[in-house]
Amino acid sequence: MKEVKIEEALKFRHPEIVVNVVTKSAEGKIDITPLGWAMLGSSKPPTWAIGVAKRHFSHKAILETKEFTVCIPHFSQAKDTLFCGARSGWDTDKLAKTKFKTLLAKEVSTPLLDESLACFECRLIDQMQTSDHTIFLGEIIAAHVSGKHDGLINLGHRKLVKIKRGSQQ
Amino acid sequence: MKEVKIEEALKFRHPEIVVNVVTKSAEGKIDITPLGWAMLGSSKPPTWAIGVAKRHFSHKAILETKEFTVCIPHFSQAKDTLFCGARSGWDTDKLAKTKFKTLLAKEVSTPLLDESLACFECRLIDQMQTSDHTIFLGEIIAAHVSGKHDGLINLGHRKLVKIKRGSQQ
Repeated sequence: MKEVKIEEALKFRHPEIVVNVVTKSAEGKIDITPLGWAMLGSSKPPTWAIGVAKRHFSHKAILETKEFTVCIPHFSQAKDTLFCGARSGWDTDKLAKTKFKTLLAKEVSTPLLDESLACFECRLIDQMQTSDHTIFLGEIIAAHVSGKHDGLINLGHRKLVKIKRGSQQ
Repeated sequence: MKEVKIEEALKFRHPEIVVNVVTKSAEGKIDITPLGWAMLGSSKPPTWAIGVAKRHFSHKAILETKEFTVCIPHFSQAKDTLFCGARSGWDTDKLAKTKFKTLLAKEVSTPLLDESLACFECRLIDQMQTSDHTIFLGEIIAAHVSGKHDGLINLGHRKLVKIKRGSQQ
């Protein structure tokens, strides 16, 4: 093996998951942020750990309301997911500019995104600061599925491609 | 969408990344732990955030030596990666029981796994406790690639399948 620049080697993390994190700020503004930095943080109880850039509107919203939802996008939501990743929640009403439709969640006031493969309602229970992101740990308190399996995976460079998601077993 | 048990909805996180985390304990024992809970934690400087079960030997080793390496497996390492995930580092010498070959790292005393697609040398800089795991944040201080692209992705239920890794751009 040969040593290379770190950025060069980091390309091999792709393909990477993509999730849409939905937030609702204290003033009630709903934002959708696609993230590739998302993993489970524990088994019992289950948690999502998500890495959110400190400058993002969604970061402020999670700190305010201590909740978020994690939605795993359907293949048909690729274009709108990329749109949400390219625009800032500070000055864009992403719900108004995309075809995403929201659904009421059961346990949190932040909505779900209809037509997702799966959505998770999360309550913030911890956080870890990194240099430019915060890793938010959200306990999953309810979960929902649509019955669809045609999801997305992120190849990097804003390329989302279709992939089957969800174990068939 | 319909509400389901959380475990049912969590299947939709698959396919998930798989990385081999290499650790070297204070007494010098090298262990290999495959993980699906791995993501970047920051951009500048780049970090890996990895979720390691508290009961694992690798957890003890990371706390002792404050370092680990993250290796992205080659397709040909699927069987050995699954073996390492099925055995405990407390009572198994995984290096002796698999075909993995180690290489000296440049900046840390924990080795790399030869033939990986990419390996990252990480120094522990922070950690967050969850109920049953610790999310370790490791600053990437050196990186290596093999030039290979045939990697693996985890479908769940111990199914690793071949996938191209690394952006072609």
